[in-house]
Amino acid sequence: MSVKVAINGYGTIGKRVADAVSRQDDMKVIGVVKTRPTHEAGLALGKGFKLYVAKDGVQAFRDAGLEVAGPAEDLFRAADIIVDCTPGKKKEGGTTGEDYKKVYEALGKKAIFQGGEKHRLTGLSFNSAANYSDSVGKGYSRVVSCNTTGLCRTLYPIHKAFGIESVMAVMVRRGADPGDSKSGPINAIEPEVKVPSHHGPDVETCIPEMKDKIKTMAVKVPTTIMHLHQVAVKLKKAASVQDVVQVWEGAPRVMFVNAKDGVKSTAQVMEVARDMGRDRGDLYEIAVWKDGINVADGTLYYTQAIHQESDVVPENVDCIRAVCGLEKDGAKSVAKTNKAMGIRK
Amino acid sequence: MSVKVAINGYGTIGKRVADAVSRQDDMKVIGVVKTRPTHEAGLALGKGFKLYVAKDGVQAFRDAGLEVAGPAEDLFRAADIIVDCTPGKKKEGGTTGEDYKKVYEALGKKAIFQGGEKHRLTGLSFNSAANYSDSVGKGYSRVVSCNTTGLCRTLYPIHKAFGIESVMAVMVRRGADPGDSKSGPINAIEPEVKVPSHHGPDVETCIPEMKDKIKTMAVKVPTTIMHLHQVAVKLKKAASVQDVVQVWEGAPRVMFVNAKDGVKSTAQVMEVARDMGRDRGDLYEIAVWKDGINVADGTLYYTQAIHQESDVVPENVDCIRAVCGLEKDGAKSVAKTNKAMGIRK
Amino acid sequence: MSVKVAINGYGTIGKRVADAVSRQDDMKVIGVVKTRPTHEAGLALGKGFKLYVAKDGVQAFRDAGLEVAGPAEDLFRAADIIVDCTPGKKKEGGTTGEDYKKVYEALGKKAIFQGGEKHRLTGLSFNSAANYSDSVGKGYSRVVSCNTTGLCRTLYPIHKAFGIESVMAVMVRRGADPGDSKSGPINAIEPEVKVPSHHGPDVETCIPEMKDKIKTMAVKVPTTIMHLHQVAVKLKKAASVQDVVQVWEGAPRVMFVNAKDGVKSTAQVMEVARDMGRDRGDLYEIAVWKDGINVADGTLYYTQAIHQESDVVPENVDCIRAVCGLEKDGAKSVAKTNKAMGIRK
Amino acid sequence: MSVKVAINGYGTIGKRVADAVSRQDDMKVIGVVKTRPTHEAGLALGKGFKLYVAKDGVQAFRDAGLEVAGPAEDLFRAADIIVDCTPGKKKEGGTTGEDYKKVYEALGKKAIFQGGEKHRLTGLSFNSAANYSDSVGKGYSRVVSCNTTGLCRTLYPIHKAFGIESVMAVMVRRGADPGDSKSGPINAIEPEVKVPSHHGPDVETCIPEMKDKIKTMAVKVPTTIMHLHQVAVKLKKAASVQDVVQVWEGAPRVMFVNAKDGVKSTAQVMEVARDMGRDRGDLYEIAVWKDGINVADGTLYYTQAIHQESDVVPENVDCIRAVCGLEKDGAKSVAKTNKAMGIRK
Repeated sequence: MSVKVAINGYGTIGKRVADAVSRQDDMKVIGVVKTRPTHEAGLALGKGFKLYVAKDGVQAFRDAGLEVAGPAEDLFRAADIIVDCTPGKKKEGGTTGEDYKKVYEALGKKAIFQGGEKHRLTGLSFNSAANYSDSVGKGYSRVVSCNTTGLCRTLYPIHKAFGIESVMAVMVRRGADPGDSKSGPINAIEPEVKVPSHHGPDVETCIPEMKDKIKTMAVKVPTTIMHLHQVAVKLKKAASVQDVVQVWEGAPRVMFVNAKDGVKSTAQVMEVARDMGRDRGDLYEIAVWKDGINVADGTLYYTQAIHQESDVVPENVDCIRAVCGLEKDGAKSVAKTNKAMGIRK
Repeated sequence: MSVKVAINGYGTIGKRVADAVSRQDDMKVIGVVKTRPTHEAGLALGKGFKLYVAKDGVQAFRDAGLEVAGPAEDLFRAADIIVDCTPGKKKEGGTTGEDYKKVYEALGKKAIFQGGEKHRLTGLSFNSAANYSDSVGKGYSRVVSCNTTGLCRTLYPIHKAFGIESVMAVMVRRGADPGDSKSGPINAIEPEVKVPSHHGPDVETCIPEMKDKIKTMAVKVPTTIMHLHQVAVKLKKAASVQDVVQVWEGAPRVMFVNAKDGVKSTAQVMEVARDMGRDRGDLYEIAVWKDGINVADGTLYYTQAIHQESDVVPENVDCIRAVCGLEKDGAKSVAKTNKAMGIRK
Repeated sequence: MSVKVAINGYGTIGKRVADAVSRQDDMKVIGVVKTRPTHEAGLALGKGFKLYVAKDGVQAFRDAGLEVAGPAEDLFRAADIIVDCTPGKKKEGGTTGEDYKKVYEALGKKAIFQGGEKHRLTGLSFNSAANYSDSVGKGYSRVVSCNTTGLCRTLYPIHKAFGIESVMAVMVRRGADPGDSKSGPINAIEPEVKVPSHHGPDVETCIPEMKDKIKTMAVKVPTTIMHLHQVAVKLKKAASVQDVVQVWEGAPRVMFVNAKDGVKSTAQVMEVARDMGRDRGDLYEIAVWKDGINVADGTLYYTQAIHQESDVVPENVDCIRAVCGLEKDGAKSVAKTNKAMGIRK
Repeated sequence: MSVKVAINGYGTIGKRVADAVSRQDDMKVIGVVKTRPTHEAGLALGKGFKLYVAKDGVQAFRDAGLEVAGPAEDLFRAADIIVDCTPGKKKEGGTTGEDYKKVYEALGKKAIFQGGEKHRLTGLSFNSAANYSDSVGKGYSRVVSCNTTGLCRTLYPIHKAFGIESVMAVMVRRGADPGDSKSGPINAIEPEVKVPSHHGPDVETCIPEMKDKIKTMAVKVPTTIMHLHQVAVKLKKAASVQDVVQVWEGAPRVMFVNAKDGVKSTAQVMEVARDMGRDRGDLYEIAVWKDGINVADGTLYYTQAIHQESDVVPENVDCIRAVCGLEKDGAKSVAKTNKAMGIRK
């Protein structure tokens, strides 16, 4: 029997989660919620998803010739679980994650939120490798953001293998998503002046042993493709570059690229992803430069690229499986999700 | 029996033509030629294409652990036709299209060149809609560039339906391809100072009736996605916006987008393409803004976006079919190619 | 005796007009109006300009330690003329040019508006070369936008010398100003879908003989420096490239650059401007590529670059002089302004 | 008596050093060397600098109508000191810093090199605040790069005041200079895969006590304005944010900006600089975000922006004064240079 999944919000993350859920044999999408009749509403219908509409928006959809299945609440009521993919930063007067949580609770429904929401909304955050079991059978969980997911994927196995004394990471963030032509900057570097940034504490929500050990800083730059992290990790136990490579070779959803093969920047990483034939040219894995790993004076230095649109998508599938109790073993869920989505490991 | 196709050059165009040929039932790729052991060489092998190596490069490939099938000449000899996807602007000392043409001629092989080469190399240029039949059974043809292909696709049906007095087009060109992190500009607009630009005369190689009627200017801008054309066409016969829409609805490989649906720029056009699920998020069609079409004082104004990496790919397939005499009717070849590649019309 | 000028709005244009007025001997700045206590408020005080504050903003300025001279109305009352440099597109609930015009009228003050306002606000638009005399002694005028100013500067002398049959221009516009890190696009080309665009009719407000003769299209691109125009002008009278060069050599505030000297894009044009030593690296002149001028079949083709932050600044000075009746002869005002601002011709 | 200064190379740095030297009363520019007749050659003549030509280039300059004073060697012979502003990375077959050093040595002339050359070329590197006295009376010195200058300016006073245990810095570098329209990336983040990067050891050439204590990583991003550094400094002695602010208030050529005043990115920092009225809109100071300084667990975090085109210019003036023995006290030279260039402290 398939778990019935409702997708609330059919934008960058929502449309990808919908496709990913559709590839699994133990869950299915029973409908998606859109607020405005943009081209993505037509896309959802084209893919055979039923379209539910938030609030008083039905008429606008009908005017645009788009078939509406009903109000969002009808969808939530019919679902076993809701994946909330509404934007984290609400516009003035908009519905917040907290508002929606109350709706889901009133209907007695399980729900998963995205990393744009605060940890305190659910009190429980999720990363497939680091803390899958914490979410098993729970009512609400939160898949951490693309950046935190990236840090967890590479830091957790290092923590297990060698122990981590402290981490300093700078995240160079893309200014806008590829399909956005409104946001900037066009020609500037914009630092987050609050240092250390919030990304460090967010890692701790999935890896409690990292408490107070990870400091992060962040800047925004004029690119639409990928965030890039430069990370320095003071190790507890001595490790060679080869040891580190071996650990990440065994780590799920981490892959290597090499500058010496011409993969010199996020541009070529995304080109590799397009060549891999994934939907939308996505890259679910974290790309680590293999020839950019170094260990000096007990500190591991590395650089990784994060596909902000898609790295959390397989984690959402795993999180559905955990929350709904479909699978208690995280490694088995990861393997199952990977197989369905064409991820090698 | 399948036509045996060799792909000389496995870069932006070559790798796409190889995939497109592989989807057809009347032709097959028997090998590809690479000059350097970059990640795309690994990609070719991963896709099951035999790798042939130009010049004295074999050792470098073996050092990189890449299996080489033999020298490029062996591949050419075994082929029925060579699709030359080598770059148009050769580096100093590099092999030119003219050099390669001599090699192909010496081996008695048919060949197709790309729009980076001059028309005079073959004396024959190709666009599926405008002049398919000219290339049927010929030894050599040249698929015109992405920009010229875009202009032919929209202008040819207008020319047939209403007649064209004159055309003025400005092409706003992307500065680099998505997988390139070396070329600029980062923050500048660079005009082609030679005006009118060469694009006008190039259209005439496929539509001789346009002789001296089309003037073009061009600028380069800091984006990696799509060229954009703004076009003004003085019509011979009166036509309404609705008449024009109807003509393009019937035209092959032309599709509409609408700013009112949120598709406001090339960013959203490419997002639509990614959502369509094509390989690499490519868009083989020319995207015309439907709500950007206007007719005023007998002049048609419109804006179109060109996916520089892929719009010529189905034309290459058609051109193979024409040159090899597999199909004499252009419309039938277009329909066959479209079906194999998931293009609606 | 000096004309007393109030500057309403001390942003990109306002701060430059204030500096330009300060360089003249027949007018002086008696104060500037700011709405928010940003770093530009400190700049105004540092330059010795009295700071007046719009609406209920006084406390915010005092909290920021900025000395406020009084409410904006006090400044308007004391002025002979107000240069309104408030933004053309008002935010929701903000004060519009129409609102301000009523304030100025109620106080019986002359005023000049910027090109962001509509022509109908004043019924009178201004370009120093094309129609200076129309504004002499009038109560209200409007200095046309940077793009329209650029078109008037090069088209008006061509119109006088050879006559113009028709014009087709495409304007490639910068996405944001250099000091803005919020607006995009980062990686997209955004066409104005309403074609022809509003820029053509705006030229007619200064050159009535161009009525219905100029059609324009526009796109926005990811750069912060300069707009670029590609223009095709069908001439009434035959002219050679040399004839055209000679006309523009005599035209005010038009200068030549050459791609063959390394000035290949707007990046190098702005570098030339920085080397010229003007305030803020500004370029008051329109830069025409001399080696990009061509005449073919009776049509003149050219490319020009427009410094969006500053080309209208000397026109504002001239317009003050016209409206206040300080000088009836446009050529004399232009010469006087130029001398004070270091503009060669 | 004025020291006679020759400027070898009149590009980004050379043209600025020439202007800065011209503002001093104890030194003067006796000529500049150019290799190609670009628009900057005309600029030099326009400013009254004699133009000397490298190698066999005289004819090209004469063809371009540019007056040449003689071969470069004549200039070197007449000078007391040569400031070598030739590019650090030579093109194939080009003259290197080492080649030029031999020329200067053969003529018995003192010379200053830029940070693009290696430390080992001179065995002596220079930063005005950190080690002025080391260069007094020496034959050759090297002004460290813009990035190293930036790190020295903020780290040296922290080192003196509180002691430094260790430093981790990530430098987010601009991809091209504002006047360059050729280099990219347009839409990518390019990491330096060799980690730690060379910038750390370069700081040690000016502050030997930092030996092995500073680790750096670097990425290149699509902007033309400013490098940005995010720095974490483990302090030896406890310090509050206020203590740190006080130290930098006393430090030469360090200034504060505030995000809360609207200076949120390098775009607004450069706008502040343009408003300050410096030549070319340059910013000789290092801009530190005052509201971006934090101390947590004994570690100081801060973000600074570096104007890559100009921060080393006053250091070159100081270095001339040191090497030529015009002033033995670094603080006095800094004060003298600052006064002549309009730098507050």
